[in-house]
Amino acid sequence: MNRLSLNQKTINSSTLPQAIDACVRAGIGSIGVWREPLQEVGVQRGAELIAQAGLRVSSLCRGGFFTGQDRAAVLDDNRRAIDEAAELSAGCLVLVVGGLPAGSRDLIAARATVADVLEELAPYAADRSVRLALEPMHPIYCADRGVVSTLGQALDLAEWFDPEVVGVVVDTFHVWWDPDLERQIERAAGRIASFQVCDWITPLPADTLLARGVMGDGHIDFPYIAGLVAKAGYTGDVEVEIFNADLWRQPADVVVPLIAERFAETCGY
Amino acid sequence: MNRLSLNQKTINSSTLPQAIDACVRAGIGSIGVWREPLQEVGVQRGAELIAQAGLRVSSLCRGGFFTGQDRAAVLDDNRRAIDEAAELSAGCLVLVVGGLPAGSRDLIAARATVADVLEELAPYAADRSVRLALEPMHPIYCADRGVVSTLGQALDLAEWFDPEVVGVVVDTFHVWWDPDLERQIERAAGRIASFQVCDWITPLPADTLLARGVMGDGHIDFPYIAGLVAKAGYTGDVEVEIFNADLWRQPADVVVPLIAERFAETCGY
Repeated sequence: MNRLSLNQKTINSSTLPQAIDACVRAGIGSIGVWREPLQEVGVQRGAELIAQAGLRVSSLCRGGFFTGQDRAAVLDDNRRAIDEAAELSAGCLVLVVGGLPAGSRDLIAARATVADVLEELAPYAADRSVRLALEPMHPIYCADRGVVSTLGQALDLAEWFDPEVVGVVVDTFHVWWDPDLERQIERAAGRIASFQVCDWITPLPADTLLARGVMGDGHIDFPYIAGLVAKAGYTGDVEVEIFNADLWRQPADVVVPLIAERFAETCGY
Repeated sequence: MNRLSLNQKTINSSTLPQAIDACVRAGIGSIGVWREPLQEVGVQRGAELIAQAGLRVSSLCRGGFFTGQDRAAVLDDNRRAIDEAAELSAGCLVLVVGGLPAGSRDLIAARATVADVLEELAPYAADRSVRLALEPMHPIYCADRGVVSTLGQALDLAEWFDPEVVGVVVDTFHVWWDPDLERQIERAAGRIASFQVCDWITPLPADTLLARGVMGDGHIDFPYIAGLVAKAGYTGDVEVEIFNADLWRQPADVVVPLIAERFAETCGY
């Protein structure tokens, strides 16, 4: 339990103060913060509330969308996200890199753009002691959300930088299917900035963005993946991040204890 | 056009005689046959009708589901499928290897089962001059349809066998996102048993089994992938296989000319 972090998206209808309160009441010591609900209370005020509650910020979600066509706007927004992560003393800033630009089918060019933007942002992050965390996304999202599709590909990008500046996210939902997972998690030693858990359920819900399951409801072998991540030396917070329409309809007071229980049962911490 | 093969699933409501007729009328020289509609007319009669029409059989779809719990039934069914492929002189028997066994989360064991069953079947196929074609499936299907998730993984399995006995399928829908695609298609030289095309569309339709688009409607760069396949020395038929509920509601007389037109536009043959 002392490694469990509640990602705000898991209780999507809660405000930041409500999410903080839910963590405190459930004895959860860490929170994954999203930028939009953070904006609602203001970054400085949000940082104060989290500090007063004694919570760690395991991650700020999220920067990225590097493949957008207005490069200046992309850089501006990501620099703001880095500033926010610094103000929160967040463990990392999660980066969802973006899909194919509108009208483009050039996946290789989109992937090259990700490398370019990362190179531009890394010094800015380093100056503020913010760790960027590249998140490989399940290939189902390759066209529209993330052209970085495997942990190996994320590491190929990250390895050009200091591991304290550019790390990677291991999210069970995105990587569980990968035949090369064992080798790539081993390779990620020292570079795992965030470990996120949720399940892969079938049949997949109609809205693929809300297709994630509570641990134990699906097909993922959590002890196996948690073991690989532990073997790679990761000792940080483990975030539960679940996008699921059914879960979002339930009150936080129901969801948070369920999450804590399933976390203990499936992840073995 | 002379390399276009119509996979029966693209006109799912047609019988085999109707599908044969649709090919002949459209000047398409090759057909991808499915076992269920073949059974309806009988294997021998089906083979006769196809031969009389002067069509090639680019593939028989499909064997596989190796991960099923009744091993004897799995082997029986696949031996029957091999016999049918032999009777049709099919270019290959496509294998969809199956997902996780019911109640199991052991992906590594499921993948080992695939290797075991393949080893048992390969001599039977070799004796009948039938080429088995392992189909890597998009990771979206890893849990419930195919635990072979990348072309690289399919090749790791296939390379234990003579390329004329165990080949692989390159299906654009399943592999387009793969950051390692160029290298793996190059590696597949001499082992590509089937090249199938259809598009990845967004938003993904609610039923992920029927989520495939007509070439040109989605995000896949067909000239790029067709070029890689050509560079690997593949000169065989190119199958259009589209599972799509909207398409299936339209008559074959509308669908087949559309497919032929889009094939010419996007694949450049």
